[in-house]
Amino acid sequence: MKMKNEDDFEYRKLANTFVGLIQDGTLVPGTRVPSLRQTSLQKRVSVTTALKAYRLLEDRGYLRASPKSGYFVSNPAATLLDATTTPGPPRHERSVSLPKIMNTLLEHSSDPKFVPLGCNSPRSRLLAPENLDRSLARSTRRYGADKNAHASPKGDVRLRQQVARRSLTWGGAFSYEDIMITCGCTEAVIIALQAVTKPGDMVAVESPTYFGNLHTMEALKLRAYELPTDAETGIDLEALEKALQQQVINACLLPPSFSNPLGFTMSEEKKLAILKLLKKHGIPLIEDDAAGEIYFGKERPRPFSALDPSADVLYCSSFSKTLAPGYRVGWIATKQHMDGVLDKKLTTTLYSPSLSQFALAEFLSSGGYDNHLRKLRRNLEEALDMLGHAVSAAFPKGTHVSRPGGGNALWLELPGTIDSLELFYQALDEGICIVPGEIFSVDDRYSNCLRLSAAHGWDARIEAGVATIGALAKRMMQD
Amino acid sequence: MKMKNEDDFEYRKLANTFVGLIQDGTLVPGTRVPSLRQTSLQKRVSVTTALKAYRLLEDRGYLRASPKSGYFVSNPAATLLDATTTPGPPRHERSVSLPKIMNTLLEHSSDPKFVPLGCNSPRSRLLAPENLDRSLARSTRRYGADKNAHASPKGDVRLRQQVARRSLTWGGAFSYEDIMITCGCTEAVIIALQAVTKPGDMVAVESPTYFGNLHTMEALKLRAYELPTDAETGIDLEALEKALQQQVINACLLPPSFSNPLGFTMSEEKKLAILKLLKKHGIPLIEDDAAGEIYFGKERPRPFSALDPSADVLYCSSFSKTLAPGYRVGWIATKQHMDGVLDKKLTTTLYSPSLSQFALAEFLSSGGYDNHLRKLRRNLEEALDMLGHAVSAAFPKGTHVSRPGGGNALWLELPGTIDSLELFYQALDEGICIVPGEIFSVDDRYSNCLRLSAAHGWDARIEAGVATIGALAKRMMQD
Repeated sequence: MKMKNEDDFEYRKLANTFVGLIQDGTLVPGTRVPSLRQTSLQKRVSVTTALKAYRLLEDRGYLRASPKSGYFVSNPAATLLDATTTPGPPRHERSVSLPKIMNTLLEHSSDPKFVPLGCNSPRSRLLAPENLDRSLARSTRRYGADKNAHASPKGDVRLRQQVARRSLTWGGAFSYEDIMITCGCTEAVIIALQAVTKPGDMVAVESPTYFGNLHTMEALKLRAYELPTDAETGIDLEALEKALQQQVINACLLPPSFSNPLGFTMSEEKKLAILKLLKKHGIPLIEDDAAGEIYFGKERPRPFSALDPSADVLYCSSFSKTLAPGYRVGWIATKQHMDGVLDKKLTTTLYSPSLSQFALAEFLSSGGYDNHLRKLRRNLEEALDMLGHAVSAAFPKGTHVSRPGGGNALWLELPGTIDSLELFYQALDEGICIVPGEIFSVDDRYSNCLRLSAAHGWDARIEAGVATIGALAKRMMQD
Repeated sequence: MKMKNEDDFEYRKLANTFVGLIQDGTLVPGTRVPSLRQTSLQKRVSVTTALKAYRLLEDRGYLRASPKSGYFVSNPAATLLDATTTPGPPRHERSVSLPKIMNTLLEHSSDPKFVPLGCNSPRSRLLAPENLDRSLARSTRRYGADKNAHASPKGDVRLRQQVARRSLTWGGAFSYEDIMITCGCTEAVIIALQAVTKPGDMVAVESPTYFGNLHTMEALKLRAYELPTDAETGIDLEALEKALQQQVINACLLPPSFSNPLGFTMSEEKKLAILKLLKKHGIPLIEDDAAGEIYFGKERPRPFSALDPSADVLYCSSFSKTLAPGYRVGWIATKQHMDGVLDKKLTTTLYSPSLSQFALAEFLSSGGYDNHLRKLRRNLEEALDMLGHAVSAAFPKGTHVSRPGGGNALWLELPGTIDSLELFYQALDEGICIVPGEIFSVDDRYSNCLRLSAAHGWDARIEAGVATIGALAKRMMQD
């Protein structure tokens, strides 16, 4: 299976040239890079190819676009995660089994007493709290006793209309009839999985993969098929095809943008190739787009369901990363499986809370969401930049760091001897919460990795926390 | 296995004597029955036995206690459901499989356009909406940005403390550490089931059993073992023991009070006998006490977990039947399985919404809950009485009706030829929502039954709705 076409090859080659120039110091941070036209002439490529290369570099965090003045080299937050350090073949036949550590993690990750490097949901002050409070107050008045009655199991129709309307902005073509409201993205994913799998089934995922989804699969007695995953280009398409041919996979669960934890976004060509493969084998795709709105490039990457509206896809997302973690409002959008997901909703939480739905519908219809998102993206991108700098300064030599094009987190590979689970416990003792790599896989292949989040913005306490973790890691190397 | 002891036999015999006198018209509604002392002398039983008999009659709806003036014969709402009409042996080995009808039902049951005889959650105006709104407003102000942050997966500690404190009033002995908050009782039950079963397991339930629980079991690939159930005394203990001896059962799911739909409450003796059997065979019990607070007798029946704090029990309940259906707040109380249920919470909804929890904690600590509950019970009991009268007046001769001691619903057995599913659809056409008996079992043994709820109180529209359903049923008999 050949994935890349000629054009794909060309713009990636061009992008890699720039990566080399940036990494060897030829292009230093702040430098304005040649214009698209200049590059097109110099490198003998089309302007389109040059643009694609620049956008890729922008998505990967190497370049920063500045309106009307062109592209500039970003601050080098840290070394790009080396693609050669990504996992070898997964242990296919093992049931998902997550350690108790996830409970410990979640008890501490949102505890304000701990430095929140383990928390992937933005802190409240980044989340338009005043505007949201106003929407809440308006809904409280407007809906009177209705807010204490059940909404429909499928969810409040006004909120579903708002969600459907917003899906148009990222290329989705959903009617409100294709939308079901859930209690956060977690319920969306468990319902989507229940709708298309049965116990014992195998679900293909990227590796490393968000621990919450692995844990949900474990609860449903599903097995994880961890696909080898490149930190830049995403899952290994040939490995997926092979697994499909061998008929060992019953469903696929993938992030369409800003993979958690690696931060990559697969190219549209690759997404289309995946959809084609899945269609050929009749396998459904659950896309977990929790972080889709937190993009640092020019445009939001298009999810799978936007690329082929006829594909067998269940799209899952929520407002937890962008607006209201405490409200627990997510959704599933699907044209193919609405009966199935509605059926499962009746057995998980039956109804979603009414007032949360009314307040979010009110907020969305009041029109300030896009403005809020622009500010939030800027804040999170800056915080992630600062986090990258702090990691570069504090962590041991040999630490590799991801360069996500969106989302809230960095993925770190520490030099081989460091056990991140030990680091996690030492950090808790210091009042700092991080996420050990161990829980992003069903086996221990990421025991030298960790995820750090910049979701709470940047301040002196967080900066000091990163310095402490780095110092702990250095000390562990010397032991 | 002999379940009843001598005393049990005696007070039941005495109670049955009164049932006979009421049914044959010797004791007419409104009559004051002999005092406890008189009855004790006349019947040569102890005053304690007489009291137990009267309380049973009160719980069953035959007598009404009036403070300081003694016991009176209640209005005969309808014929008591005949115990001989309860099910024969269940089809043990069949997987739970519920028809699509549940989706149709839930879309209509809380739709205000339909007469709400299918809705088992009280309407908002019965639910102290002003006081709850005040608590909501206070919490909104007090918690500021916190309400938009995650609570702990286990739930807000203040709410857990309030729930634990209230459990003392019904004999529970739970610390707040034994309480986990859920999104309604539905999530509580799915989590409890996940914590103690695996796909393919068999779960013993009463029959008929609440359709939502059957549906949840279906989603988890569990099989329902429907125990023969007497409309007055509850499940067949010998059938349970036999199944336990044959090791076909992996867990038990039972209501400790006001079974949905039959409305019975098992005696404490019987509950203790069940606990003893389950302990002997090492089988866990999930008790679904959604309606426990809606009792019409003097005291709230004691749940299983109150009778033996060391028993292997997961207690599930919520505020949906008493205070806040739209808030979706329930809980699990368990001493034995907290790690397991917390683990599953991480995979269903991860966190419960913050503000709902804050507002309910605020409401409970403000102290008006008991007063509200007293009013609510009175309102619901009156409505259920009126519903019973209306059913007697409107339904075909030969209709049997349950006489619940609490809860919101009546269970009707229609004369043999009437198909309640057909009646359900005809009623929807008339703008009335009822619940067909069909969905309270995995097979079609209740196709001549239906559940009518009085949860929305009583008014002319509902009264007219009952008359219409009765007329439809009569017409179906003539067809």
